[in-house]
Amino acid sequence: MTERLVVIGGDATGMSAASQARRLRTAAELEIVVFERSRFTSYSACGIPYWVGGAVPQRDSLIARTEAEHRARDIDLRMRTEAIAIDVAGGRVLARDLESGAETWTDYDKLVIATGATPIRPELPGIDAIGVHGVQTLDDGQALLDTLDRIDGRRAVVVGAGYIGVEMAEALIQRGFEVTVVNRGGEPMSTLDPDMGALVREAMSGMGIEVIGDAEVIELRTDADGRVRAVVTKDAEIPADVVVLGIGVRPATELAREAGLPLGASGGLLTDRAMRVRGYENIWAGGDCVEVLDLVSGELRHIPLGTHANKHGQIIGSGVGGGYATFPGVVGTAVSKVCDLEVARTGLREKDARAVGLQFVTVTIESTSRSGYYPGAASMRVKMLAERRTGRLLGVQIVGREGAGKRVDVAAVALTAGMTVEQMVALDLGYAPPFSPVWDPVLVAARKAMAAVQRDR
Amino acid sequence: MTERLVVIGGDATGMSAASQARRLRTAAELEIVVFERSRFTSYSACGIPYWVGGAVPQRDSLIARTEAEHRARDIDLRMRTEAIAIDVAGGRVLARDLESGAETWTDYDKLVIATGATPIRPELPGIDAIGVHGVQTLDDGQALLDTLDRIDGRRAVVVGAGYIGVEMAEALIQRGFEVTVVNRGGEPMSTLDPDMGALVREAMSGMGIEVIGDAEVIELRTDADGRVRAVVTKDAEIPADVVVLGIGVRPATELAREAGLPLGASGGLLTDRAMRVRGYENIWAGGDCVEVLDLVSGELRHIPLGTHANKHGQIIGSGVGGGYATFPGVVGTAVSKVCDLEVARTGLREKDARAVGLQFVTVTIESTSRSGYYPGAASMRVKMLAERRTGRLLGVQIVGREGAGKRVDVAAVALTAGMTVEQMVALDLGYAPPFSPVWDPVLVAARKAMAAVQRDR
Repeated sequence: MTERLVVIGGDATGMSAASQARRLRTAAELEIVVFERSRFTSYSACGIPYWVGGAVPQRDSLIARTEAEHRARDIDLRMRTEAIAIDVAGGRVLARDLESGAETWTDYDKLVIATGATPIRPELPGIDAIGVHGVQTLDDGQALLDTLDRIDGRRAVVVGAGYIGVEMAEALIQRGFEVTVVNRGGEPMSTLDPDMGALVREAMSGMGIEVIGDAEVIELRTDADGRVRAVVTKDAEIPADVVVLGIGVRPATELAREAGLPLGASGGLLTDRAMRVRGYENIWAGGDCVEVLDLVSGELRHIPLGTHANKHGQIIGSGVGGGYATFPGVVGTAVSKVCDLEVARTGLREKDARAVGLQFVTVTIESTSRSGYYPGAASMRVKMLAERRTGRLLGVQIVGREGAGKRVDVAAVALTAGMTVEQMVALDLGYAPPFSPVWDPVLVAARKAMAAVQRDR
Repeated sequence: MTERLVVIGGDATGMSAASQARRLRTAAELEIVVFERSRFTSYSACGIPYWVGGAVPQRDSLIARTEAEHRARDIDLRMRTEAIAIDVAGGRVLARDLESGAETWTDYDKLVIATGATPIRPELPGIDAIGVHGVQTLDDGQALLDTLDRIDGRRAVVVGAGYIGVEMAEALIQRGFEVTVVNRGGEPMSTLDPDMGALVREAMSGMGIEVIGDAEVIELRTDADGRVRAVVTKDAEIPADVVVLGIGVRPATELAREAGLPLGASGGLLTDRAMRVRGYENIWAGGDCVEVLDLVSGELRHIPLGTHANKHGQIIGSGVGGGYATFPGVVGTAVSKVCDLEVARTGLREKDARAVGLQFVTVTIESTSRSGYYPGAASMRVKMLAERRTGRLLGVQIVGREGAGKRVDVAAVALTAGMTVEQMVALDLGYAPPFSPVWDPVLVAARKAMAAVQRDR
């Protein structure tokens, strides 16, 4: 008997799940139907800023696998088709063909919800003006590029200074725009502690990117033609020929909510370790529409990130196909760049640790990416949090130049393993002058953190 | 009462130990005497190839801390003074002033042996010819540079294709020499499995470096003036205007042996976890003259590497100063580059695993340093060994271009934590297109290794 898998959402999680399920089950065993409302599938949304900035010249190079490739593997991929209702009791999904408007129920034996996230779009006067763009999808990116090519003015304002905001600031600088980033918080990159965020702001200023903090946008001012002309905050009016919204996203779970599926505090779906929706044997969910366990704090969090989405898809596909795989959780690793500045973090910020009752010591060190005497040695700052008494690593933040960012991975593995900073000091990391000082910057931080923990005991 | 610490050897381990002891104990509490036979102290021997190659223009930039700086901290540093005997029963060291020839006994309460390693110099006809150079010390490096500046010919032969050999090959290429590397083993970098070493050989050939494997040198042929003219192997005679010996080193433990201190199979001193010589309460040893515990194989090994030497020095200094610190061991991490090729390894090779009775699966994958569509994405090959049944990570080898080498650190931490490849697949590593594909190459390898382990169960 042929079972039917229905997948809602044909991007990273959905298509990874479909592909992995297909590896484990033939078309005779498992029919796979995927509903994707956009015109694109299996693309790297994380790559959009680099396409907009021109580093990636071709849109299609962001597409990992085409519709035709999926169809060749017996995946019934229905593009421009939006799931509009889930009937859990009846085991069926109602989908609308966005071209014809036709609506059809499709029965499922197994269901995967991979609806992703929706950009936050504040209800502001002028938010729908010409020249105001989100950058969540390839369609968004294309629309922004069309605007950038068309307009005469060179003044760009980015609203929001998180990952998308700073990456878009870089993209617009590379396109030759004057860029101002308007941020609700005090410092950019609120995923860092403010002292590290301040370094990012200073470096951005040095690159000619103005960052205005503590600024609440109250209006996007338009001209008579409906084009955006300025971003208005409580304190200022910033002229703008184009505005990019990079405020963040929230889980796209309206469909799941209406179907009565369990959601967490952030609005993301709640799943078990095998990525099944809690309480449901035959419904899985993953990617930007779920909450994940933060292994360091023990809390559930919404962390929209392509790398988790891909892992979820693999795990779901295994489960759907009768295999066994689980997602233990995350430690909150993220890395980004803005021009030649690299910014990375993993684990808890000071306020995260406080919020869950953890007491800690904090140290910050300066070091270099290579031996100080080796050409190209670039400075970096590493901040480390360790728990009082136990010395357990709680978090690391890095701001530096080339060679800084991916050093966060050492801390990510150490966090996963529950290592103390004392254990970290002894880590046998790769050393040679072109790659590291004789004490790797992460070890220098661990050594200082160890001393701080010991003094505090 | 003032105690006296005597340190034999004023490089990484010796001076780190002296400095750390001084941090913990005042001059009134602890007198510190260091014997160093050369003219230099606290320098980066690992930096010599880059100084010879010209990437590091100034010799003195390799010196981390000068004699004067040490003396300012009340460390009695006696340069050009060689320890020639240790009287363990009497608690004293005999040292010779290499300028005056005077020999003096110095009593110690505590002794640190940091005599380092000695380059292996095969007993070959012509080994002492003009134009034949080792590259162990700054003096060696200066002598080689003088030769390179003086000679007319441009043909350089490097004997040995380990880390020093390939780094010197790069240095000589950068100096405009034609470089041939003559290697006793089949492939260069015998710290890698031969299949990965072959990649290094191919890449070196592509850079114009000829690598001759399975070649035993039997003579260094000289002209009437005593200058080297050719390297003669059993099969060939390779013209040479200069010859660099990069055959490796052995622990410099003659003094320790004569004093009756315990040595291991490789000739390195045996220590406890606090880096005290086994059986002795007041004698410590560390750096290139000791054996260290390989945490993956459980065997003792001699691994001369600046990063271990520095750690040992810190630990010894803590112990001498009345503190507490230990060195748990190593996992065998090393990273190197030859021109733009990056080579890294950690853990066990296939033959290491076999030698200690471990059965394993092996996988090799190709990936890139950044998302495939991002500019500068460079290919790399990652080989991974995992134990049969348990799936425990045993080793990783990486050969690639920019961004490849330091990825080995993730595996080094995972090895230290005893992680399985299944645990590694879930690691939350930093992802953004300029830094990594959505599945980091190490995770791609872990995924394939996991599949291989599961198939094998």
